[in-house]
Amino acid sequence: MIRFRPATRDDIPAIMALLADDMLGKTREMPDPASYYAAFDAISDEPQNMVYVGEQAGQVVATYQLTIISGLSLSASRRAQIEAVRVDASLRGQGVGATLMVDAERRACDAGAKLVQLTSNAAREDAHRFYERLGYAPSHIGFKKKL
Amino acid sequence: MIRFRPATRDDIPAIMALLADDMLGKTREMPDPASYYAAFDAISDEPQNMVYVGEQAGQVVATYQLTIISGLSLSASRRAQIEAVRVDASLRGQGVGATLMVDAERRACDAGAKLVQLTSNAAREDAHRFYERLGYAPSHIGFKKKL
Repeated sequence: MIRFRPATRDDIPAIMALLADDMLGKTREMPDPASYYAAFDAISDEPQNMVYVGEQAGQVVATYQLTIISGLSLSASRRAQIEAVRVDASLRGQGVGATLMVDAERRACDAGAKLVQLTSNAAREDAHRFYERLGYAPSHIGFKKKL
Repeated sequence: MIRFRPATRDDIPAIMALLADDMLGKTREMPDPASYYAAFDAISDEPQNMVYVGEQAGQVVATYQLTIISGLSLSASRRAQIEAVRVDASLRGQGVGATLMVDAERRACDAGAKLVQLTSNAAREDAHRFYERLGYAPSHIGFKKKL
């Protein structure tokens, strides 16, 4: 049984481990804890932006970030954006990811969002099948530019 | 000469017109001003989330939304997200869009973002060429789900 809750500062080492244990994350997550603590504090100052963790038998085994974004487009819709979805590699294929998405959608709905959106790297083909199974339409191209 | 500035409530009719005068927007923007005013007030309560307008000769001719999102992934990077980019149809092809993106990137940079991201509907082929010319990589698939 997995239970999702807002992350606390004490969860940062576990979240860092989940982010780094990933096909893309392992090349781009730096082992500098201070920057993650500073980023967590910045997130805590952003009322629309939250990190969640999934806990099972006292262990953090999954994480995601949810940002609520009010907007004028789409007939003045509020949207929710999911980032940084990660599930412990040893638990994949057991429905944890689907439970995570249900949790995120419930929180998005409670916050008044009419749309949930996310982007997934083009290389993550398994993830694309996963999101499509859950009813997500691959309707957009996600562009990124480093500053 | 176009100048970008934060939008005010007085700009809402002009922003609504820009959002509706669009290949996709014309089918999905509802002419209910009250909902746009309410959404603008909600945006004003979200410190990381701003709507900007571009003004030329006293007229609002372009708009975009910029959301600053701190995060733990990508080595604890802050990112900036651009939504709802629109330029007056009569001014397209004159560099207004590129000026808009420069303005957005400068504001993103000033806010400490290391990455700018956006999604563009797969049907907007001209927009994709535009973003690629400006250095945006089409590295992701953008998934959306209505709640």
